[in-house]
Amino acid sequence: MSKEITSRSTDYSQWYNDLVLKAGLADYSAVKGCMVIKPHGYALWENMRDVLDRMFKETGHQNAYFPLFIPKSFLSREAAHVEGFAKECAVVTHYRLKNAPDGSGVIVDPDAKLEEELIVRPTSETIIWNTYKDWIQSYRDLPLLINQWANVVRWEMRTRLFLRTTEFLWQEGHTAHATREEAVEETTKMLEVYARFAEEYMAVPVVRGVKTANERFAGAEDTYCIEALMQDGKALQAGTSHFLGQNFAKAFEVQFRDKENKLDYVWATSWGVSTRLVGALVMAHSDDEGLVLPPRIAPLQVVIVPIMNKDAEAQKKIRDYAGSLMAALRSKGIRVKFDDDEATRPGWKFAEYEMKGVPVRIALGARDMENNVAEVARRDTREKASVSLEGLEAHISNLLEEIQANMYQKALAFRNENTRKVDTWEEFVRVLDEQPGFVSAHWDGTGETEDKIKELTKATIRCIPLNNEQEAGKCILTGNPSTQRVLFARAY
Amino acid sequence: MSKEITSRSTDYSQWYNDLVLKAGLADYSAVKGCMVIKPHGYALWENMRDVLDRMFKETGHQNAYFPLFIPKSFLSREAAHVEGFAKECAVVTHYRLKNAPDGSGVIVDPDAKLEEELIVRPTSETIIWNTYKDWIQSYRDLPLLINQWANVVRWEMRTRLFLRTTEFLWQEGHTAHATREEAVEETTKMLEVYARFAEEYMAVPVVRGVKTANERFAGAEDTYCIEALMQDGKALQAGTSHFLGQNFAKAFEVQFRDKENKLDYVWATSWGVSTRLVGALVMAHSDDEGLVLPPRIAPLQVVIVPIMNKDAEAQKKIRDYAGSLMAALRSKGIRVKFDDDEATRPGWKFAEYEMKGVPVRIALGARDMENNVAEVARRDTREKASVSLEGLEAHISNLLEEIQANMYQKALAFRNENTRKVDTWEEFVRVLDEQPGFVSAHWDGTGETEDKIKELTKATIRCIPLNNEQEAGKCILTGNPSTQRVLFARAY
Repeated sequence: MSKEITSRSTDYSQWYNDLVLKAGLADYSAVKGCMVIKPHGYALWENMRDVLDRMFKETGHQNAYFPLFIPKSFLSREAAHVEGFAKECAVVTHYRLKNAPDGSGVIVDPDAKLEEELIVRPTSETIIWNTYKDWIQSYRDLPLLINQWANVVRWEMRTRLFLRTTEFLWQEGHTAHATREEAVEETTKMLEVYARFAEEYMAVPVVRGVKTANERFAGAEDTYCIEALMQDGKALQAGTSHFLGQNFAKAFEVQFRDKENKLDYVWATSWGVSTRLVGALVMAHSDDEGLVLPPRIAPLQVVIVPIMNKDAEAQKKIRDYAGSLMAALRSKGIRVKFDDDEATRPGWKFAEYEMKGVPVRIALGARDMENNVAEVARRDTREKASVSLEGLEAHISNLLEEIQANMYQKALAFRNENTRKVDTWEEFVRVLDEQPGFVSAHWDGTGETEDKIKELTKATIRCIPLNNEQEAGKCILTGNPSTQRVLFARAY
Repeated sequence: MSKEITSRSTDYSQWYNDLVLKAGLADYSAVKGCMVIKPHGYALWENMRDVLDRMFKETGHQNAYFPLFIPKSFLSREAAHVEGFAKECAVVTHYRLKNAPDGSGVIVDPDAKLEEELIVRPTSETIIWNTYKDWIQSYRDLPLLINQWANVVRWEMRTRLFLRTTEFLWQEGHTAHATREEAVEETTKMLEVYARFAEEYMAVPVVRGVKTANERFAGAEDTYCIEALMQDGKALQAGTSHFLGQNFAKAFEVQFRDKENKLDYVWATSWGVSTRLVGALVMAHSDDEGLVLPPRIAPLQVVIVPIMNKDAEAQKKIRDYAGSLMAALRSKGIRVKFDDDEATRPGWKFAEYEMKGVPVRIALGARDMENNVAEVARRDTREKASVSLEGLEAHISNLLEEIQANMYQKALAFRNENTRKVDTWEEFVRVLDEQPGFVSAHWDGTGETEDKIKELTKATIRCIPLNNEQEAGKCILTGNPSTQRVLFARAY
């Protein structure tokens, strides 16, 4: 089975597409740019969602749900927002179909035209702040800490499974605060939640940073982000957290009375991550044999494959042992499956579970059982070992932790090796082409220079890292003075 | 606070609307027919979703996600389906906006018209079966047992919060089978899952039945349903499970090779419940003081309210005890909150938590503490008791079970009292008007009679109960012979 996917060295992009399809993560659909998330991909997203949801609740947030549709006029209420978002989106103009007079099917009923068109939400700041107007009168109503799990639609011309799709699933936090300081604190707190999630669960190291003015979210005063490095040396924005100032409160007239009974506009944040994270996970860790999933979010953590011979007694012994092992692992909270499907051979199963990224595989054969051992294979390094059945549960439990840690360390080492300080334009261009990765370089701080560099090299400023070292230098393009290095890369 | 809602006897319908708003379950939105699900309502839905999701997984189903949009032509592929669904739905005709030339905002870009319009899914049979075509070739690919949690849109002219909204949240199961028998078995199995969920978690007794041909889902060969009775004597359809025969397989050309290598069309089912269940829950149990929630799905099961006097030492004693009580209850898996907000008075809190439907309230006062007791109030009967602190956790734990059981028994007794056998037309009309509830009566089995009865009385046949007693009789309207009674009611 693994032979069917393109290798990373042959064509990284094709490898990714092949893998997403063959591992059963997603499929193309009949609707341009929209994907079907298949059970294995959805189970992965569910695990990610459950962890994030817990982290949001632990930081005081509640879930709610706002309408899918946004009245067209709402989009133009916040000037910068409409520039960034209004353009490419799905527009609902009618609310009824009718039978075609010629019997050929159904047509749009021209009599059922909406007075005002509805936009399928590309993001929900506008509809949410229009609602917050009714919910917030006093400082006692603040902070309002709400998150929504939802689907959104952004009409994309070039799409990639998970990485860029017309419809995608995400969460969007929308909070309201009495002071600027509190809103900024919320923005960075949620960035840190995302960073911890990426590192501790996805095993993907990320750079925490702030976007340049050019790359800010439409309507934000500051956009914070986490940036990850993929195996081909391209960067991927894995999550953003926006400090929105009073922009949306002003656009939707959301004022509150403070403790001194003075009216003021409310301060806002918004933050989101999406099914794009599934793509990031695949690109960060997987190999030419298939997915490599970090144990903490793998839908299945351990698979037990019996190697049966014809001896009925030996078969029973294997089944009995597998049953007790499963029970022992499950009691430790480990997600385990015993695959005794007789219609497929062990070799086929091995390839299948490697493709699906199951972190640990235990093979149980009659001879192994006699010798009181099992063959344990780890997916990340593809190492196999013969392990005594005594204390096997503890071994597996530790091995899962070790795999989780190893995957993170490997990705971290890769990122460190592929983050290069560069001081001249020639070196900058050469490194981008020959040694893809993050490039740390001086920039004069202007949007013009940033645009020019992007035009010349396709590299963008991924972020200005938080707690960035201040250092005098010269802009790689213009030679103008600079006070700090920023992180460039070509990106997804 | 409770004074602000209309009483049930004054205006049941207004009581419901008031309660949904005041208890913080939902709010109206700027988009006609769409609601905002507020945190308390969403937490309730999350708990319902989590239980159902576990029940689906225990019966072998996996989650997946299919596109929000359906190409218009798909809807006309299954003839009965298009008649039932295609008419009232949101139609996407364009994919871009642009700035209005006069600077007044944004307008739809006429150059961005879709070649084929997209429908926002009202249900997903068509897009899913179009996908299954690629997933199913052989009997080895069957059964395919998939569920989706999603939002759907049906353009409704008259809407009610939760009960009938243009957009709503739901789950839709879509399964594919090799034989008719297996598909029928799946249909009834999932109906039983819904019935168990309604009765064991929502504490709402339901009648399991099958719909008449008139009331079938568009495209189904049989629609099974669970029907519940609300406090005003109106029925509410709480969930449906459809046996779709080979209709969608034929419409989308989904064939498989069986074990004998013969080609045949695949057999299908679909089944769903929605946020409508939140409305059913409210209408089944709540009272003039607010929500009454069954403990198993209440977001908060126990609230502890301190009754503080000025004595700092007594205050500390109450806080310490509340802390240890919370820890003890949480260790039993009970969802509990200690509300020591000093900005509001105990009386206000009591009314607030009654409105929100928290099943158990514990009040801790200084004098109570001295006497080694606490005041425990249960929401369902509004009874209060002074309970010894010794063994209080066990008492609370048992009380929650007792409330759950009592709510179910009360609703069951109400339904039994309000299910009446009727044998004449005069009695039928009188009972519907004067003693609303289920009416069990003979019907001649024709769609014409069913329509006529609906026209004359607004009562519909809710279902033919499963395992219905066979009994010779005469149709209440036509006097024609009948072999069984069916269940009539006016319904939501």
